[in-house]
Amino acid sequence: MKISGRNFIAGTIKDVHKGSTTAHVHLEIAGGVIITASITNESVDELGLAPGKKAHALIKSSDVMIAVD
Amino acid sequence: MKISGRNFIAGTIKDVHKGSTTAHVHLEIAGGVIITASITNESVDELGLAPGKKAHALIKSSDVMIAVD
Amino acid sequence: MKISGRNFIAGTIKDVHKGSTTAHVHLEIAGGVIITASITNESVDELGLAPGKKAHALIKSSDVMIAVD
Amino acid sequence: MKISGRNFIAGTIKDVHKGSTTAHVHLEIAGGVIITASITNESVDELGLAPGKKAHALIKSSDVMIAVD
Amino acid sequence: MKISGRNFIAGTIKDVHKGSTTAHVHLEIAGGVIITASITNESVDELGLAPGKKAHALIKSSDVMIAVD
Amino acid sequence: MKISGRNFIAGTIKDVHKGSTTAHVHLEIAGGVIITASITNESVDELGLAPGKKAHALIKSSDVMIAVD
Repeated sequence: MKISGRNFIAGTIKDVHKGSTTAHVHLEIAGGVIITASITNESVDELGLAPGKKAHALIKSSDVMIAVD
Repeated sequence: MKISGRNFIAGTIKDVHKGSTTAHVHLEIAGGVIITASITNESVDELGLAPGKKAHALIKSSDVMIAVD
Repeated sequence: MKISGRNFIAGTIKDVHKGSTTAHVHLEIAGGVIITASITNESVDELGLAPGKKAHALIKSSDVMIAVD
Repeated sequence: MKISGRNFIAGTIKDVHKGSTTAHVHLEIAGGVIITASITNESVDELGLAPGKKAHALIKSSDVMIAVD
Repeated sequence: MKISGRNFIAGTIKDVHKGSTTAHVHLEIAGGVIITASITNESVDELGLAPGKKAHALIKSSDVMIAVD
Repeated sequence: MKISGRNFIAGTIKDVHKGSTTAHVHLEIAGGVIITASITNESVDELGLAPGKKAHALIKSSDVMIAVD
């Protein structure tokens, strides 16, 4: 599958915290950088997300801001 | 300044492509991963974005999807 | 591939309008409903988007508002 | 009222699942396609969302990705 | 019409800048605060946006970050 | 710090409601307008958000819709 989202970043699931409807997932990508995703609990179950699993972060370029000092 | 966005990723501007109102910016982060941001031309000018400049990508966790094979 | 985004809707590309950096794509889904996506020109080229091509719209549930009369 | 969001899709509420602050709403649109929205519990109460109610999904075109096989 | 988006802010259109596909709209709200919206050129035409026109900014709460010094 | 997000609006925190993973924050800006943000509980703790604290709302222009009557 090819997706229009410009940011498709490979990593490994570090941990998953489920809330009542929304879960927070930490994905470790190259260089030890941690990306945090906020997704539905159903997604966590459907994708079988658990520490150690290979996954990608998918982010639309229009959702990325740039900051400079 | 502290920001609620959970993803604040350090990198270096690789290149900037301006359109008529929207610009695409490529930021190289750790491990050579490239993050693409779609921001306004005014932002590019105001932040003085150019190749080689240190910058951060700022992404809300609710804008990050996770994909698995 | 499985993706956390809850809305993965099958359709057919109706038309594509490229701007200087951003393109507008119309996707016809079931019942003749048209979904409009605003994506980068690179995405259009990379995915080979053209009228008649089968495609899916991918939308995070946190990006969907509900309106009632 | 007219809204700039390009995707304004008519449907009927199928079900509503409230969490502690965030609710997941399933809206059935033409062709039996289900759209999932993640909105605040206050919105659910204020809009009186319940199964069978007519509603629209409102989605900005910049929040729609396209995927192809 | 009632909309789930928690931020529905009244104001007056200050100016509109059209690009090739995307337009930037400045809306002046209470206290002289200027809100910038990036919407499609079709939206500008369809809504008849021009300086002096009354309008609202509609923003989902999940799209708002908070920053502190 | 300078950020590409075009909407950086000063205000004062009115109240904070924490859910299991997601919190709703109300920020009062000029003219008594209330902006609602949906952010993670960690952000609330890390930024020390509490009623009376000075803060800014940060919103990307591509996340702002315009509505007219």
